[in-house]
Amino acid sequence: MSALEALRARLAELTDLVALGRLAEWDQLVMMPTEGGEERGNQLGTLTRIAHERATSQEIGEWLAELEGAPLGEIDADIVRLARRDWERARRVPAELAAELSVAHAEGQESWRAARAADDFAAFMPALTRNLELARAYGRCVADEGIGVYQALVDDFDFGLRTAEIERVFSALAPELIALAARADPAGGPSQPDVPVSIQRQAMERTLSRLGVEPASWRVDVSAHPFSTWMARRDSRITTRYGDAGLESALSSLHEYGHALYERQIDPRLDRTNLASGTSMSIHESQSKLWENHVARHPRFAGVLAQDLGAAGYQIAAEELHAGLVAVAPSLIRVSADPLTYPLHIVLRFELELALVEGSLAVADLPDAWGEGMRRLLGLEVPSDALGCLQDIHWGAGAFGYFPSYAIGCLIAASLWEAIEADLGSREAALADGEVASIREWLGEHVHRYGRRLDTIPVLEAATGQGLRIEPFLRYAEPLVPA
Amino acid sequence: MSALEALRARLAELTDLVALGRLAEWDQLVMMPTEGGEERGNQLGTLTRIAHERATSQEIGEWLAELEGAPLGEIDADIVRLARRDWERARRVPAELAAELSVAHAEGQESWRAARAADDFAAFMPALTRNLELARAYGRCVADEGIGVYQALVDDFDFGLRTAEIERVFSALAPELIALAARADPAGGPSQPDVPVSIQRQAMERTLSRLGVEPASWRVDVSAHPFSTWMARRDSRITTRYGDAGLESALSSLHEYGHALYERQIDPRLDRTNLASGTSMSIHESQSKLWENHVARHPRFAGVLAQDLGAAGYQIAAEELHAGLVAVAPSLIRVSADPLTYPLHIVLRFELELALVEGSLAVADLPDAWGEGMRRLLGLEVPSDALGCLQDIHWGAGAFGYFPSYAIGCLIAASLWEAIEADLGSREAALADGEVASIREWLGEHVHRYGRRLDTIPVLEAATGQGLRIEPFLRYAEPLVPA
Repeated sequence: MSALEALRARLAELTDLVALGRLAEWDQLVMMPTEGGEERGNQLGTLTRIAHERATSQEIGEWLAELEGAPLGEIDADIVRLARRDWERARRVPAELAAELSVAHAEGQESWRAARAADDFAAFMPALTRNLELARAYGRCVADEGIGVYQALVDDFDFGLRTAEIERVFSALAPELIALAARADPAGGPSQPDVPVSIQRQAMERTLSRLGVEPASWRVDVSAHPFSTWMARRDSRITTRYGDAGLESALSSLHEYGHALYERQIDPRLDRTNLASGTSMSIHESQSKLWENHVARHPRFAGVLAQDLGAAGYQIAAEELHAGLVAVAPSLIRVSADPLTYPLHIVLRFELELALVEGSLAVADLPDAWGEGMRRLLGLEVPSDALGCLQDIHWGAGAFGYFPSYAIGCLIAASLWEAIEADLGSREAALADGEVASIREWLGEHVHRYGRRLDTIPVLEAATGQGLRIEPFLRYAEPLVPA
Repeated sequence: MSALEALRARLAELTDLVALGRLAEWDQLVMMPTEGGEERGNQLGTLTRIAHERATSQEIGEWLAELEGAPLGEIDADIVRLARRDWERARRVPAELAAELSVAHAEGQESWRAARAADDFAAFMPALTRNLELARAYGRCVADEGIGVYQALVDDFDFGLRTAEIERVFSALAPELIALAARADPAGGPSQPDVPVSIQRQAMERTLSRLGVEPASWRVDVSAHPFSTWMARRDSRITTRYGDAGLESALSSLHEYGHALYERQIDPRLDRTNLASGTSMSIHESQSKLWENHVARHPRFAGVLAQDLGAAGYQIAAEELHAGLVAVAPSLIRVSADPLTYPLHIVLRFELELALVEGSLAVADLPDAWGEGMRRLLGLEVPSDALGCLQDIHWGAGAFGYFPSYAIGCLIAASLWEAIEADLGSREAALADGEVASIREWLGEHVHRYGRRLDTIPVLEAATGQGLRIEPFLRYAEPLVPA
């Protein structure tokens, strides 16, 4: 075998192991009898360890050394470039630290669950402190020369997205959104209709089938927290939940559809290589937010949703449905935030996690800092840590540097939406008819097909001709509140 | 790490990989969107290859050499003994042959499917011939000195069960069963009632919950062919299907329950070792057949099944239900055969596969030999190969030496049943009440807990005090036909 064949074979093997891990996780959250949990932990641990061994082995370095400088086609050149990046990063993490991280993340999530249930931040402090220490140690290991620790963590989720750029964008975005939010109806606006679960389920099946979700290559299941995953290009799985709010399932289903669609439309020539996945969390989130904010919340698409609800036996006017889906009202909880104030929740988390990682905020001071931030950004008093800094699992799971992608994703989604309408013309009429194939195809051609060949900002530039901007999102958000 | 720790760590890792493979197969048959199939094949191929590499690596030999002769506790001694057996067998198969087998088994199943659908034996001949050649090559590799090729294949499924013993038992069993079958009502006896699927489903849920099937550690799903699997001691999964015959789901559910229960009741001290699985196909089949033949088909348990059907809205007398479940009528298809003539289908397959492997029967002559055997053993003319030698997938999948376990399992089940009633007294009253905990516990104590520590015949002897016998099965079968 040539070095290229050997490298490609190894990358294909790693693709398979990742897919098996995804399957094991999906099964655990959707299908597995609860008492299988302990052994599933062992199974995933073994899989991760073996994959890490094979992703960091010395021979990869030998293949890369042979291939770098050799004449390669453009796809193979990108394969080698990304393989070098991934291999270097993975090898910088000592096995002992990797094992400590894995244990601390598992224990941190358990600690977080218990602390949130008991509204007891002090109980979570040791685990959070440990996760922070390990995140710093990890960041120091993987950081390239001259790169800060927080930046090194961000690079895991969004390679090449600079912390300074996030700060620039968020500091411009926050005052604009605060000003817009101030125009919202203080009474909170219309609430979502209370649709029976069985009807939500039937209607959502109809709506998703308009989007191309068919049983031969998709599954739609129910789980405690909606998510999407994929075991192959043509094996996409999304989950939803019903019942919390009237139409949460519509928003979350289209959100997860956006994630899954991205992975389905990557250039098939990249299959079974290290290039065949979404390039970053921000671009991934831009795909989910595009379908959630710009399709599911579009005034014309409300007619389609109303029609599908009607066919399932629930009559509602499109205007009323739409009003419920876009009502702006500052609130305490990120995951149920309205589309306008959502990024403010992220700005808060970004400020705090940056300060935690850099050491300028002590863990013990987090609740107060959270309270101050919520007051400043959303004008709300935080009544408890359970409704405050204990609401999200991320830090308990050791994920620092992940949060920004949620807001960057909103910004990119709005930029892509404007680019779509600039290219294809207004989507008003198409969405009124429930026609989304043109959107799907545009995204495939301008975003999805690249896989990991382009990083976050380059793919944004390729698709829109411009870098990271807040204006498209502001143009999306502005009509959501009274003038 | 000591050699023992290193060996145990490797065996635990292999346990995890096997469980992940089981999950991937279960998912493929029960959950996966069909278009995920090709990538699933790749994923399973990678998993198998990695597991094989780690199961056959040189270092295992070094650990074993260090441990053999060292003072070990009895469980560790068995771990080492079985590890030696498995390692030697696996290492005797060249990687190239293993790869050829894997491809030929996959292609053989595809060829079989198409040939059966078209009732075209000639189309299946090349794949069957190829599978036979490779099975012989494989058998020659793994055979211990002085062991025949067919015996070597049997050893994969039932280590230590001798071909001569199978021949002795089957040649005694066949004439007895032929004579009993001749007493059956030539009109075919009562048929199973036609129970609506939704009622079958509700009733089966009630019945299985009596057996201890609860959602925290079991799943029950639907698949094209019923099967059972497990990803952990407390993650048992069975499947069933509804609709073919009235109560097929009752028989198949209890059958699969028997398989799954076996794995749940292995001594927990064996967890995550090479001893923590059912010891052989024959013992496994004895567990499924015990619940199918001796519980589900018991005249007293029919009252319980009738009660559960009644609660689901279908009224039927216990006697009528029982009569449908045990009606004896020689038929062409193994999987729907009655409990008395079922072993005759196996005797036929054993005779033919032994002759195929030994080369005394040419592949081209299989249909004629099948016709002759069906005439001799079941008194039936075979109208087509689809209803004859093309009905089972096993040979297409390269499984030679597997069939005997189906009939040996029936014999062992009957022996165990007599031992249970000898130990605990008649189960008449308990089964009339739907009480099966005593049976479950007896099996746990006398069969299941050993895992692989005892092979087929030793575990049978431990549980019953006797070897392989046909008399208990004949005593079970005799009352199924008129005197």
